[in-house]
Amino acid sequence: MKVTKPKKVVLAYSGGLDTSVILKWLQEEYGCEVITFTADIGQGEELEPARKKAKKMGIKKIFIEDLREEFVRDFVFPMFRANAVYEGEYLLGTSIARPLIAKALIDTARKVGADAISHGATGKGNDQVRFELGAYALMPDVNIIAPWREWKLTGRESMLKYADKHGIPVDFKKRKGGAPYSMDANLLHISYESGILEDPDYEPEESMWRITVSPEKAPNKPEFVDLEYKRGDIVAVNGKKMSPAQVLTELNRIGGKHGVGRLDLVENRYVGMKSRGCYETPGGTIMLRAHRAIESITLDREVLALKDDLMPRYARMVYNGYWFSPERKLLQGLIDASQEYVNGRVRVKLYKGTVLTTGRKSKDSLFDQTIATMDEDRGAYNQADAGGFIKLNALRMRIAAKKGRK
Amino acid sequence: MKVTKPKKVVLAYSGGLDTSVILKWLQEEYGCEVITFTADIGQGEELEPARKKAKKMGIKKIFIEDLREEFVRDFVFPMFRANAVYEGEYLLGTSIARPLIAKALIDTARKVGADAISHGATGKGNDQVRFELGAYALMPDVNIIAPWREWKLTGRESMLKYADKHGIPVDFKKRKGGAPYSMDANLLHISYESGILEDPDYEPEESMWRITVSPEKAPNKPEFVDLEYKRGDIVAVNGKKMSPAQVLTELNRIGGKHGVGRLDLVENRYVGMKSRGCYETPGGTIMLRAHRAIESITLDREVLALKDDLMPRYARMVYNGYWFSPERKLLQGLIDASQEYVNGRVRVKLYKGTVLTTGRKSKDSLFDQTIATMDEDRGAYNQADAGGFIKLNALRMRIAAKKGRK
Amino acid sequence: MKVTKPKKVVLAYSGGLDTSVILKWLQEEYGCEVITFTADIGQGEELEPARKKAKKMGIKKIFIEDLREEFVRDFVFPMFRANAVYEGEYLLGTSIARPLIAKALIDTARKVGADAISHGATGKGNDQVRFELGAYALMPDVNIIAPWREWKLTGRESMLKYADKHGIPVDFKKRKGGAPYSMDANLLHISYESGILEDPDYEPEESMWRITVSPEKAPNKPEFVDLEYKRGDIVAVNGKKMSPAQVLTELNRIGGKHGVGRLDLVENRYVGMKSRGCYETPGGTIMLRAHRAIESITLDREVLALKDDLMPRYARMVYNGYWFSPERKLLQGLIDASQEYVNGRVRVKLYKGTVLTTGRKSKDSLFDQTIATMDEDRGAYNQADAGGFIKLNALRMRIAAKKGRK
Amino acid sequence: MKVTKPKKVVLAYSGGLDTSVILKWLQEEYGCEVITFTADIGQGEELEPARKKAKKMGIKKIFIEDLREEFVRDFVFPMFRANAVYEGEYLLGTSIARPLIAKALIDTARKVGADAISHGATGKGNDQVRFELGAYALMPDVNIIAPWREWKLTGRESMLKYADKHGIPVDFKKRKGGAPYSMDANLLHISYESGILEDPDYEPEESMWRITVSPEKAPNKPEFVDLEYKRGDIVAVNGKKMSPAQVLTELNRIGGKHGVGRLDLVENRYVGMKSRGCYETPGGTIMLRAHRAIESITLDREVLALKDDLMPRYARMVYNGYWFSPERKLLQGLIDASQEYVNGRVRVKLYKGTVLTTGRKSKDSLFDQTIATMDEDRGAYNQADAGGFIKLNALRMRIAAKKGRK
Repeated sequence: MKVTKPKKVVLAYSGGLDTSVILKWLQEEYGCEVITFTADIGQGEELEPARKKAKKMGIKKIFIEDLREEFVRDFVFPMFRANAVYEGEYLLGTSIARPLIAKALIDTARKVGADAISHGATGKGNDQVRFELGAYALMPDVNIIAPWREWKLTGRESMLKYADKHGIPVDFKKRKGGAPYSMDANLLHISYESGILEDPDYEPEESMWRITVSPEKAPNKPEFVDLEYKRGDIVAVNGKKMSPAQVLTELNRIGGKHGVGRLDLVENRYVGMKSRGCYETPGGTIMLRAHRAIESITLDREVLALKDDLMPRYARMVYNGYWFSPERKLLQGLIDASQEYVNGRVRVKLYKGTVLTTGRKSKDSLFDQTIATMDEDRGAYNQADAGGFIKLNALRMRIAAKKGRK
Repeated sequence: MKVTKPKKVVLAYSGGLDTSVILKWLQEEYGCEVITFTADIGQGEELEPARKKAKKMGIKKIFIEDLREEFVRDFVFPMFRANAVYEGEYLLGTSIARPLIAKALIDTARKVGADAISHGATGKGNDQVRFELGAYALMPDVNIIAPWREWKLTGRESMLKYADKHGIPVDFKKRKGGAPYSMDANLLHISYESGILEDPDYEPEESMWRITVSPEKAPNKPEFVDLEYKRGDIVAVNGKKMSPAQVLTELNRIGGKHGVGRLDLVENRYVGMKSRGCYETPGGTIMLRAHRAIESITLDREVLALKDDLMPRYARMVYNGYWFSPERKLLQGLIDASQEYVNGRVRVKLYKGTVLTTGRKSKDSLFDQTIATMDEDRGAYNQADAGGFIKLNALRMRIAAKKGRK
Repeated sequence: MKVTKPKKVVLAYSGGLDTSVILKWLQEEYGCEVITFTADIGQGEELEPARKKAKKMGIKKIFIEDLREEFVRDFVFPMFRANAVYEGEYLLGTSIARPLIAKALIDTARKVGADAISHGATGKGNDQVRFELGAYALMPDVNIIAPWREWKLTGRESMLKYADKHGIPVDFKKRKGGAPYSMDANLLHISYESGILEDPDYEPEESMWRITVSPEKAPNKPEFVDLEYKRGDIVAVNGKKMSPAQVLTELNRIGGKHGVGRLDLVENRYVGMKSRGCYETPGGTIMLRAHRAIESITLDREVLALKDDLMPRYARMVYNGYWFSPERKLLQGLIDASQEYVNGRVRVKLYKGTVLTTGRKSKDSLFDQTIATMDEDRGAYNQADAGGFIKLNALRMRIAAKKGRK
Repeated sequence: MKVTKPKKVVLAYSGGLDTSVILKWLQEEYGCEVITFTADIGQGEELEPARKKAKKMGIKKIFIEDLREEFVRDFVFPMFRANAVYEGEYLLGTSIARPLIAKALIDTARKVGADAISHGATGKGNDQVRFELGAYALMPDVNIIAPWREWKLTGRESMLKYADKHGIPVDFKKRKGGAPYSMDANLLHISYESGILEDPDYEPEESMWRITVSPEKAPNKPEFVDLEYKRGDIVAVNGKKMSPAQVLTELNRIGGKHGVGRLDLVENRYVGMKSRGCYETPGGTIMLRAHRAIESITLDREVLALKDDLMPRYARMVYNGYWFSPERKLLQGLIDASQEYVNGRVRVKLYKGTVLTTGRKSKDSLFDQTIATMDEDRGAYNQADAGGFIKLNALRMRIAAKKGRK
């Protein structure tokens, strides 16, 4: 596990200023061959400009891949089977994309015989951890170069200077300072953080949000959406069969239109500090509620309890970057096994930012009307049983109370 | 713990048809003295009619108490310190009121020297369990009479007949069949269940909901609310100091106005079957989100994780009726201790059913801008540390990967 | 789920006085056909006498089965993969046998078309719960007759009288009062409880114990035993391949010879009271320690942590009778999956009641001497990394301390 | 949190070769004043030689303290209230001593106005983490110098050379290579690791063990010990009142005499690798079993379950060095609160390495013989209640089975 000088580096390249500077810096600093890797995970940007830019900087091997289906099918959907929410609110939109990138970088490294990878995440955030834990788990001897933790370019000024010096184009907005916060997008969400958001008591401008309209501007009429589940995953929206990425795209569209899925919170980073984040997760917000609803009629009570008890731990695994760890895989196995009967249809109502479940139906439903009914049940349930049930459950407390315990 | 014939029974009496029939039945069946107990826990009904009715039925000792402050201070607030949610969605509005009633019944029984209590909960629901576990824990030898589990009056018809026979007044609506669902209200919420709601795929009529307007009819302008926290409890709303019950009343008013807090779900009862419930919890919905927000800046990460991991278990304790159990008290002790620094102010924005946190501020905040900043931090945080952090966290996975484990 | 008069009952029949009385009582009380089922689960008793006795009482269908291999393979071994221990000490020897009997009864009921089963467990113990939860899970409409909860025969005297009246033979010892405690045996253990053991401060006589010699009388020379593991199960003892039941039989023999596996404790029953039990589990005690040892070199740290965190819950599921529940099966799935690499050889040393691990070896070992060594490691591990690791792990506590938190 | 050049360093000084070399190195490398701190935590070594040696090396401020009572009272006893065991076997003997040393170093640093501390733990072990997390939590800006992570002295040879060059005396044994393993001792235990122990399949020589005789050489007669508990702590041994450190000293003596408390295991270090350790914990082994026994009759079942579920997590906190973390304190609060009624007397029998509980007695016992008895109980428990109890607990499984679920 020694660190040696890298010879061939696969760089996670977005085509933006930061990773372009990194590209150049890797060439300069290590004199190594750089291979760029750029993925479409639904961030909503053209990828061809990245190819052009890389070419211009002398890159010979340029990889551009559309990973949207893999992203939703193998990462987003499994996570939603767990109802994963970090610290009570965060839907893990950034966290879940990182291991996919790590995997794609390592796959590319194997393909081209590279001995190192590099990324543009800073030394303060969670993403470096997620990239690197993922990469180490998949290729234990890989050399990882995280320029932000190494180089001397600590601020915007020095970076612009470096770009100018090496002829890296800087767009006008960026030169003027760029957005007053940083942003990350994929098919599951857009996140905003840092800059003006570093004051947790500051409410961001309406203009910041991008994929959801403000609830105030959402349609005045609610919209009902039918979601068809199979083994815990949505397979059809409003009766139309769809692939995983299509499902999420469609739910983002509908949810975004109705102002669903905005979130503003402070979270605890794995590296030890608190951080404020604003998130838009329209489709994910609908999926969480709907998945809860389909589980509510198809899961056994104690299975639900077990899942709920383990969920925060699972969410921390994802948040902290342990997607490829054996403990996450074990939990995933349990979660996936629990979804065998999570089939059926859920109806939700969207209106100005709200998502309300209004119906759920399943051939695998455990909701038994003949027992649940408060009307005459013809012997399906013997009420007298409840007396014994309560008495034995109370016994230990009665014994203690008789001993005078408070 | 032998069951013997009761001599003096304290009955949880609402003044409605069911508990009036029970009152008479207790007199007939057991020939015992009946004492009625009626509490105001914010259900929004006049209590004096209950007194009159009881008097008319020959009751000598009639207890009527306003328990609203105790309810919120000693039950609702402690529960919200835990961020308690049952099965991912239910805010435990009914569950949390039952132990208070149990306690009040037992207190009254001690006062009048009664050897038994009685209640009108059926043998299929959770409430019988909550009443009785509470009562047994507080008075282990109490005799509990649950007429629904004993008598022969199994349907509406036989009950009306019994009422008529004994001169118990039945109001017109009730005679015609009453509401097409049953309802339970207190200061925290209103619940609706059974009847037409027994089909989990049926969306209830708008007219069912009572303390929230429909989001569609909520004001077109958002409203911001400032909540002041002290040790995890709200002590002021919009700058105005308030008692616990006042806080909840005020948040119900504001939240209800904005259509906040409707919920429609299927839950698992402790007695073993699934049940559909619709809930309105306007104030509680605001409180949950705001409490998460104030904790997000004042709680340590691992304390939050511990609380999150234990929350579902705590929620089950409350749901299942173990409020007065030693395990709930132990967990409560931990939760309360965690709230020492949960002080500060949260701002939420209400709009057509949505609650969004927009600001949080605290002199006890652990949010450290000098460290969190992505700008130059003057040495507050050494980015190079992250490399070692990641390497050691990855070590076990690297060793495993080198051994060829997948 | 209505209870109706049973027509054909499968009785768990041991051939002893109690179940013989039950046999007769079922015939008398219900006038139904009784089918007897007797299993060899290693209790160390002849089963043919049971057949004779049943015949004599007019039973036409008599089932006698050797379930020892199934018992160890499908119940004991899976449980030991979990390192299951109830309340810190109890190895669940009785608990794990009950679901097997429940399953066998139900299988027999299906075979002969019976609509009911019956057992001899009392209304105070855990075994009734384990039998019945198992049976209901496997055959939801089965009618279960638990005579001890129904009949009037409450003491030894009335039972002897009933036996005499119906010509059921009573052996001399039993007539004189029998052992001063009750006993239950199977291939995993012998348990002793009730009678003189009901005083938790009374030390039982040496003569009570049966399958272990007293440590005082154990050989003066230690014995080393080699155990070969495959996917978490022992497949060979001292180099000799063995079937599951053979493994346990052999370990009982060796452990018993060395006085290994006695236990004296007070446990909490599921039905609400505390109970004192003495247990002999020679083979199981060796297996628990050895399994921990083989896991210690083959399991990932966080997998071990996850298993340890879930173990007490798993143990409660087994103790409380939820073997056939979906939650136990889910956990089992996780546990089994974790055992993929739990292969290798463990050496333990037995001496006068002690079991000490002295060696462990595995081709799947994650113990990496090149890293673990305190000697020069040639760069396998960079000690400087630890500084960053500690700093980031300390960060949240440092921030809090700077804010003056204690 | 910047690292600056230290001016005044408090060194955890044992008087041995390693910390003497560190002492000199600190003087040389940083030119700073060194203050030595040496504590008696029961390691069984004279401390005066350390004073002499420090004096000889020019140290002006030498602190020597007897921390044995504080160690047992504030660290060992609280931990045993939790029944803490790491990874199923390890009693945390080393782990629990480190935070005390950290605290003492920081207290000393405050006393003398030092800005830094230093210790002799290597960069591969857990102890560096425990020292440093503790120190940072107590004094967030402290500068910590861990020479093993910094200097060039990587092996024994270079260290001997350094010692010789600077006139640091090296005893003959050490020069010849020292013990073939390293050792750490305190009042709770002695640990052995590294060197020849790095092969997990090698059984150490009998001569390695120091405070326990081999079971083979232990007395041929068992010895009974009575332990008196108050709120979870032992306050008297065999009827004699004792202070915490006296209790542990006495139990070490008795346990050691009977060969109790040897352990040989492989554990997972927090820094990511597996490590083999051999431990002698005679008193602790007795305390764990006895504490379980006193809890078994005085704790409520669900409290016990809660404690058991949280125990592994608590143990990890201790093992990983988070003693002074808010999460450990919160859990400790819960654990301590659970001990209110953990009073009474336990009797254990020691014999050739075994510890068997033979009796337990408490005025706070929840063991209720009138209910537990299998004899006639005069109505204390109604066996018929069990039927209802089982039926309702089975309900969800019956519903699922009727739906055809396996």
